[in-house]
This record gives sequence, structure tokens and C-alpha cells, in this order.
Amino acid sequence: MCKYCDYTIHGAQHHFGWDNSIAPVETVAPGSTIRFACLDSSAGQLGPSSTVEDVASLDFGKINPVSGPIYIDGAEPGDILKVTIDSFLPREAEGSAWGWTANIPGFGLLADQFTDPALTIWKFDAASPDRALWGKNGKVPLKPFCGTIGVAPAEMGLQSIVPPRRVGGNLDIRDLAAGTTLYLPVEVTGALFSVGDTHAAQGDGEVCGTAIESPMDTILSFDLIKDTPRKMPRFTTPGPVTRHLDTKGYEVTTGIGPDLMSGARDAVAGMVDLLCATQGLSPEDAYMLVSTCGDLRISEIVDAPNWVVSFYFPRSVFE
Amino acid sequence: MCKYCDYTIHGAQHHFGWDNSIAPVETVAPGSTIRFACLDSSAGQLGPSSTVEDVASLDFGKINPVSGPIYIDGAEPGDILKVTIDSFLPREAEGSAWGWTANIPGFGLLADQFTDPALTIWKFDAASPDRALWGKNGKVPLKPFCGTIGVAPAEMGLQSIVPPRRVGGNLDIRDLAAGTTLYLPVEVTGALFSVGDTHAAQGDGEVCGTAIESPMDTILSFDLIKDTPRKMPRFTTPGPVTRHLDTKGYEVTTGIGPDLMSGARDAVAGMVDLLCATQGLSPEDAYMLVSTCGDLRISEIVDAPNWVVSFYFPRSVFE
Repeated sequence: MCKYCDYTIHGAQHHFGWDNSIAPVETVAPGSTIRFACLDSSAGQLGPSSTVEDVASLDFGKINPVSGPIYIDGAEPGDILKVTIDSFLPREAEGSAWGWTANIPGFGLLADQFTDPALTIWKFDAASPDRALWGKNGKVPLKPFCGTIGVAPAEMGLQSIVPPRRVGGNLDIRDLAAGTTLYLPVEVTGALFSVGDTHAAQGDGEVCGTAIESPMDTILSFDLIKDTPRKMPRFTTPGPVTRHLDTKGYEVTTGIGPDLMSGARDAVAGMVDLLCATQGLSPEDAYMLVSTCGDLRISEIVDAPNWVVSFYFPRSVFE
Repeated sequence: MCKYCDYTIHGAQHHFGWDNSIAPVETVAPGSTIRFACLDSSAGQLGPSSTVEDVASLDFGKINPVSGPIYIDGAEPGDILKVTIDSFLPREAEGSAWGWTANIPGFGLLADQFTDPALTIWKFDAASPDRALWGKNGKVPLKPFCGTIGVAPAEMGLQSIVPPRRVGGNLDIRDLAAGTTLYLPVEVTGALFSVGDTHAAQGDGEVCGTAIESPMDTILSFDLIKDTPRKMPRFTTPGPVTRHLDTKGYEVTTGIGPDLMSGARDAVAGMVDLLCATQGLSPEDAYMLVSTCGDLRISEIVDAPNWVVSFYFPRSVFE
């Protein structure tokens, strides 16, 4: 229970996929604060003792559960649901907070180059989730956030949870962290808000397809802004977003050409090569590592016909 | 003259476009440090007193001059030219360091929406180029860098200066600033290095097509790494890259969908709308402003079929 919360939504109160006919698990007034227990994105299929064989046998019908939905009193299409993200509280298993990063065949930016399953299990301090160790001398700075956060779309019937939408969903924006305020367009009466897919850390891009996937509770507050249609989600962060990463600067690789997707792939492949050469990592390990802390940026998008995508890997991981 | 430099390349020693038959203006040994005087990207067609009419009459045959080329003794195809970026020194005109940002019709990420020429003239302190004022209460943090930096491509004949290439060129990467080390693939004997297009500030993307275009001197050092082919440029930054921007956090807009270019356009258009609504800017002014300090990031590129591009505008500009 959360002593400051008006409601607690337990992990069993989850659903798979978006469907505006799913009955709400709670009805709340604007101004409410709610604690959500979020399962990890495997819905418990992976745990701290899992092995790569468990990745190969994942049931994709039970991927990315979200806790909810919550019916917000008075919410109507054309309103904005304002979600204030208060905090994240990692849950322990086998004596520690934990998370997993996997290469899942067929999924990820370089799926054609990484065809075998791979798995990294992370452990970290639940009370102070500021870093997780990598191998013998690496450390990945942590910044917990919710990967999937959204409201039900207007489309009828079951909609896949995988793609993000104009109503949010699987946004995987790493700055939807404590302190951020998110503004979501409402498309159905009651909004029908759900959240899940909590991550302990992720770089911009989530390039291997997974972050540090980690079960956590999150505390969120809700308000309504009436009659203010928005085309896409937006958010406000109150302070710096990269200071957990940037102390030692970055190694940066680039992809240059007329297609942003190809540029992103070249930049990430270049970083995998660089870390294999300089840190002695296997390509699979490098690919999973950079997904948790490397940032994809569009350096220029105007010098036709070639754009520059850059991939920033924080040097603090190995320094 | 630069008392620490081995050579000075003057602004008159420039060329338009890349052509590996252009005679070098200097031949230097690896280990040399050189001061380059760089013209602004209009090659002096715009100045501190220019008006929007001057944008409309720009001669595009004289755009983006680069100072050089420099022949590096011993450089051969398959080597890497290592360029250490030491410093930038803005040059004054009419009593102040200055720069320009323009909307040039037909150029820029939202060229279809911004069809009329527009111009902003900036002034700032040459001795301490840390910020430039915007309107009555705004300030844009400055971080000088070189927009165009590269070596001659292997292709014969005159090649456009506009698109960046695997040998560098018009990269417009805003972190090619003081302290950064850049690694460029060499494609021709002598490398034939040139630099120009100095910017006082730019966000990731350079979304309106121009940054704070500003004439500056830059001091660079050169080394060779023999027989190490690279596919694309890479660079190393020694420290944080966003601390001049991030103190007050960010306003962030998103673009969600199956095409990264459309996502980037939606995110930037959303930010222009937001700044017009919250700061009372004209769309043209907002578009030029965000080009100088807003960052395009790829938040996720794996949740098929929809990707998320986010545009981060630093709140410190107006706080």
C-alpha cells in the first residue's frame, strides 16, 4: 500500500493489448494519485535465474502487460490527460532488484545481424537504483521509467500493444521518469489509462529491442485539461536528462545517407564494432549493452540528400 | 596570427564544393596545429546589418565556403585523419561578434510550411560567447563548432558541398566543438582537409536549415592513424554535451509513426505550435529559434511498425 495514494492497482490487474471495451479496474476523479504495480514486459516469464533458453521459448501472446485500465471521471474525447510521474520503486526477487535485457530474434534495429537469442540479467540496489554492474569493470547508470504509458485508442477491438500510438502506449521514451509531466490526447470516454513495461535504464532508440526490463511500482497523479485536442503526446521535464550519463563524455559513431533508418543502423553497427575492438566485448553483448545506455540523435536532417544520425555511448560505463 | 600554431590559413584561401583536384593551400606534417579563418556560410553575402531581402537574393553558387585544402604529408587512402578541435574564436563585425539564422525557401525540414524568407541577426560577446539574446526575454546558450569539416572524396570532379559524406563535410554535428577529437576516413593521397561553416549554436537536426551562422577562427591539430579503414566518421567528446542547455529541463514534443522523417516533422511542427501558443512567437520566429537550440532524438526505433522521434526544447531559453 502507498500511504500517499488514493488507490493501489495490483499486478494481477493487467491486460494484454489495447481494447476500449476492457472494463476499468478502478474509477477515479481527476486529482487522484495511484500506485501501480507493474509486471516486467515478459509478464513474469523471465526471472533473475532465467537463461537464454527461456528467451527462445517466450510466449509472445503474453508480452508487455499493462496495469489498468483506470477510468478517469469526466474524461471525454478531445481532452488531455495530464499524468504527473512521481516515482518508481523496484521490486525485489531472489533477494535483489533485478532486470533483464534480451536479443529476441526478429526484433530490434539490427535483427538481420543478430539472429540468435541472447540474455543479460542485471541486479541492482532496490533502495538506491543508480547503477547496475556490467561484466568485470562496467557500470550502467540507471534511471527508472515506464516504457508503456497511455490511454485506450478510439479504434474498436483488440489493438497490438507493441506499436506506440498518438494516445501513447509503448512510447519507450527514456525521460518518462520521476518528475516528468506527460500530456496524452484522450480518445474515449473515461480515457482508460494503463501503464507498464517499467525499465531501469534505456538509451534513446532502445536499439536491441529491449531495455533493462524490470518489475517496479510507479506512483502517478492524474488531471484533466478539458477540450484541448492534441495530435501527439508531449511532456515536460523539470531538469537535466543526461547527467547520470554524461560526466565522462561520449564515444560517438555516425551513419550518413539519404535514409534515417539506414543511418541509425550504420551508427549502431559502428558502435558495436567499436566496443568489440576497444573493450573486448562479443557483438551480442555490445548490442545489448548499448541498448541500455546509448542515445540515437539526429544530428542534421536538412543537408539534402544526406542526413546524419549519431549514436552516443557514455564513456562513464567503462571509466 | 596564432602564437601556438604552425600555420595560419586565411579566409581568402577558401573553395566552394569538394574537388580532389583543387591544389592544396598548405602542406603540413602530422602533428601540426593550424589556425583556420572561416567565413560564414553565406561567404560574406550576409552581415550584421542584413535584412530579409538579402536572404531572398542570396547567390547559391557562393554558399558554404571551406578554408583549405590542407595536404597532410603521408596520408593515403585507408588511413584515418585524426582532428583534435582546440578552440573557436568569433570574429567581430560592426563592433560585435554576430551570426545569422535564416529560413531559406526550399530548404529546411518544414520547407513546405515555411515558404517565405526570414532572417534573425544575433549579437554576442566575442570574448565570452556563452549566450545570445532572443527578443525581449529569451537567451540561447552558445556552443561554437564547425558545421563543415572533412577531407576530399575519391569521386572525381566537383562535388556539392551541401550533403555530408562518409569523408565528413557538411556534418552539422553540434558536438564537433572545442575538446572533441574527430576521426575521418581518408580517400585521397594527402587527405586534402578543409573546414568552414562555423556555427555559434545549433540543436540536433538544424531543423530550419541554418544554425547561428557566424564567422570564426578555429584551431585544429592533425594526426594520422595509418592503415585503418573506417566506413563513417566517428568522434570522442571528453565531457558533457548538453549542460549549457539542460539546467531547467525541456519541453518535448513527439512524432509517432512508421517513418522517421514524418515523425521528425511532426515533432518539430508540434514544438513550433507549442512555442507560438505559450510564448507568443510567430511561427517563423519559433522555427528559426528551435533550429538553434532544440534537439531531435530517436526515442525508440524498434516497436514496429511505429517509431518515436522526440524534439527537446530547453526551458532555460525562456526561464
